Amino acid sequence: MRHILVIGAGKSTAALIAYLLNNSKKENLYITIGDLDLEQAKNLCDHNEQCKALQLDIFDSISRQSAIKKADIVISMLPARFHIEVARDCVKLKKSLVTASYVSKEMQALDKEVKENGLVFMNEIGVDPGIDHMSAMQVINRIKDKGGKMLMFESFTGGLVAPESDTNLWNYKFTWNPRNVVVAGQGGTAEFLQEGKFKYIPYHRLFRRTEFLNIENYGRFEGYANRNSLDYKSIYGLDDILTLYRGTIRRVGFSHAWNMFVQLGMTDDSYQLHDSENMSYRDFVNSFLPYSPTDTVELKLRHNLKIDQDDIMWDKLEELDIFNADKKIGIQNATPAQALQKILSDKWTLAKDDKDMIVMYHKFGYELNGEKKQIDSTMVHIGKDQIQTAMAKTVGLPVGIATLAILNKKITTPGVQIPITKEVYEPILKELESHGIVFNEKETEYLGYNPFGAVGN
Amino acid sequence: MRHILVIGAGKSTAALIAYLLNNSKKENLYITIGDLDLEQAKNLCDHNEQCKALQLDIFDSISRQSAIKKADIVISMLPARFHIEVARDCVKLKKSLVTASYVSKEMQALDKEVKENGLVFMNEIGVDPGIDHMSAMQVINRIKDKGGKMLMFESFTGGLVAPESDTNLWNYKFTWNPRNVVVAGQGGTAEFLQEGKFKYIPYHRLFRRTEFLNIENYGRFEGYANRNSLDYKSIYGLDDILTLYRGTIRRVGFSHAWNMFVQLGMTDDSYQLHDSENMSYRDFVNSFLPYSPTDTVELKLRHNLKIDQDDIMWDKLEELDIFNADKKIGIQNATPAQALQKILSDKWTLAKDDKDMIVMYHKFGYELNGEKKQIDSTMVHIGKDQIQTAMAKTVGLPVGIATLAILNKKITTPGVQIPITKEVYEPILKELESHGIVFNEKETEYLGYNPFGAVGN
Repeated sequence: MRHILVIGAGKSTAALIAYLLNNSKKENLYITIGDLDLEQAKNLCDHNEQCKALQLDIFDSISRQSAIKKADIVISMLPARFHIEVARDCVKLKKSLVTASYVSKEMQALDKEVKENGLVFMNEIGVDPGIDHMSAMQVINRIKDKGGKMLMFESFTGGLVAPESDTNLWNYKFTWNPRNVVVAGQGGTAEFLQEGKFKYIPYHRLFRRTEFLNIENYGRFEGYANRNSLDYKSIYGLDDILTLYRGTIRRVGFSHAWNMFVQLGMTDDSYQLHDSENMSYRDFVNSFLPYSPTDTVELKLRHNLKIDQDDIMWDKLEELDIFNADKKIGIQNATPAQALQKILSDKWTLAKDDKDMIVMYHKFGYELNGEKKQIDSTMVHIGKDQIQTAMAKTVGLPVGIATLAILNKKITTPGVQIPITKEVYEPILKELESHGIVFNEKETEYLGYNPFGAVGN
Repeated sequence: MRHILVIGAGKSTAALIAYLLNNSKKENLYITIGDLDLEQAKNLCDHNEQCKALQLDIFDSISRQSAIKKADIVISMLPARFHIEVARDCVKLKKSLVTASYVSKEMQALDKEVKENGLVFMNEIGVDPGIDHMSAMQVINRIKDKGGKMLMFESFTGGLVAPESDTNLWNYKFTWNPRNVVVAGQGGTAEFLQEGKFKYIPYHRLFRRTEFLNIENYGRFEGYANRNSLDYKSIYGLDDILTLYRGTIRRVGFSHAWNMFVQLGMTDDSYQLHDSENMSYRDFVNSFLPYSPTDTVELKLRHNLKIDQDDIMWDKLEELDIFNADKKIGIQNATPAQALQKILSDKWTLAKDDKDMIVMYHKFGYELNGEKKQIDSTMVHIGKDQIQTAMAKTVGLPVGIATLAILNKKITTPGVQIPITKEVYEPILKELESHGIVFNEKETEYLGYNPFGAVGN
């Protein structure tokens, strides 16, 4: 029996465990799920005889190391900041490690030791980051292998609500960590490249510079820029590329409306509101508007954001019941972002039968044999219910597949890494297809942003 | 002879030294000016026999302590972050200290030892902070002494160009550290109180929520909110006040125009532009605008900021020559704020004969014997030339006056302090008057922001 230790029994772990248990007989696996909450871990095991729940406090190094020692490979599904202690133990005890999180500096610093011990530390192997890396690199490498030269790479991902559960004016519900949605885009200016020009968008303008995306059968979406597009230049081997842009997908109109919160200052997470606990939703809105002895909060907001009487923006605000004077924020020392999250959660929490949806869209512009071409590659995946979500599946499956591939010596190149090599992405993408996670490719005319070769600005 | 050590021979030190030398005979003073740049220190001494220039490296603790040991009192005119080493030496060597800077946490931490040694560490005794504290506390205490209850305190200060030197469309030139002007308002949301309601303005909205101020003979000004108004609640003893607002003064229209830079992202100081050294002014502007193969930078900017064809905003931009494709930023690894400062410095640097102007405006609303009243107190001071600036004088004079008052035992209460007690502000304000730094008080009807006692929003 090969022992797999899974640390952390959170939302996305369910899909991972389901995959591992499905393969436990064939692959001769024994899975231990370690979590502080023993019941949660037990639930995931679902009485399977090749699975064991373990109460594990990850800050207790003795029990952590004891659990890791017994494993042949370790999967950390903990929040990103907690991986590093597990990773250090894995180096010490010579175990390979799989996580779905971005490689931290501390994690990267282990690379030399990981290599010396012949271990594989596979990171960023969820959906975003994860499936985005793999699906992009597969096409980029195919183009390069044919002798093509990359001109443009744009990549968008979004976690949305499925069309059949899309029941509000925002065309949005929280399908993952709401906090990440509220503070999305903060922490730095968005930088990217268009036709060789570096472009910068400050946070307070981010949601007003969107790009439209059409996906057959699913209609129109929009994308706003991620902060870190340029980080992918060297990672993806695109050093001479003219256009490089990564973004987040929402339904059309979401960003325009979200911008209202940004403009008012409601998404700020850097300071605490006075007496936030007793603030009504209406007080919260009013605290960002000029004082008036007479004018209503509603009219002040309309004037402040220049919202016309018949603008749909207004209906979107009213749908959130944001002017309610009785509903309280009810959180001590809340930041504006935390207060806003509370208000949004009333309306944007998935209902029992709601389904989520993952959408990914890559554009590859390239030159081959003197001809400019473009491939658009899209993936849409819809969840089954609130447990078997598309998000959990697209995160958990690649983690599980990678783990087995490492156990089975299909992935052997040692080091701290992300899934951008053929050795890694080919088998994983292939298996993902059998689970219905399929990319749909379309050749299209390459236009880029400067189709007639003008000087450009 | 009483020995005064002045450390730092920068811009505002000239006015301070002139004051001390004017009093050197009468007061029996010997002044030592310590600076890394000996020539600069010598220039300030101006061959006066009761003054000596000393080459002093403040990071060399031996020569620093040796200079402090010989003094009866020490004035630090260094940049704020360098005061603390001098302050620690002063505690050790039992010398009183005067600075014009905000009290840092490290400085405050010395309070107990300073008191135990019977020393006076007077800080925040320039113009802002300094004259603002003193002139405000004088009126606040007068109102309280009569049995009045403070309802409102608003206070505005600005360093501007004098009307006779006001020659550009922005009605603004750099009269002090340009960097502070470019990044003004950053680092946190502006918080203040209006009629008992806490109000918050995020940075990207700060310059669109101004208040007008009229000063007789000088016309109309505007004020935008400072970040830290609420800090002054307990410092000034205004714990129950309804309205508390501190702001920065500009000429009307400046903030509206400055907002263009904020909106574009040009004032950001948190990241470096790619290849900033070779960027033209036009490239700089363009990097904040969407790419276009054909449209001009000018039209993209007009569209982006919704500037009409006949809007004066446009003339303000053109006056700065900001669309010039030949002028280069010429600074390696410049942040947007540094690049913008370069562009502005071309046009906003004081000409040889230009004069600067300090403007201060306080509003005190209060209730006395059941009646609501208001006092408006204003001060305008105009510099003589580019050396004898209003800024240097209003910083240097109170520092000098406070130093003599401590030497002459007129200020004796020990501790790390700021000038908010009668003992301190009464003699200093009186002497400032004799130097033409005069506040003009006017009783006016108190309206507040809620004159009819409505519920208010």
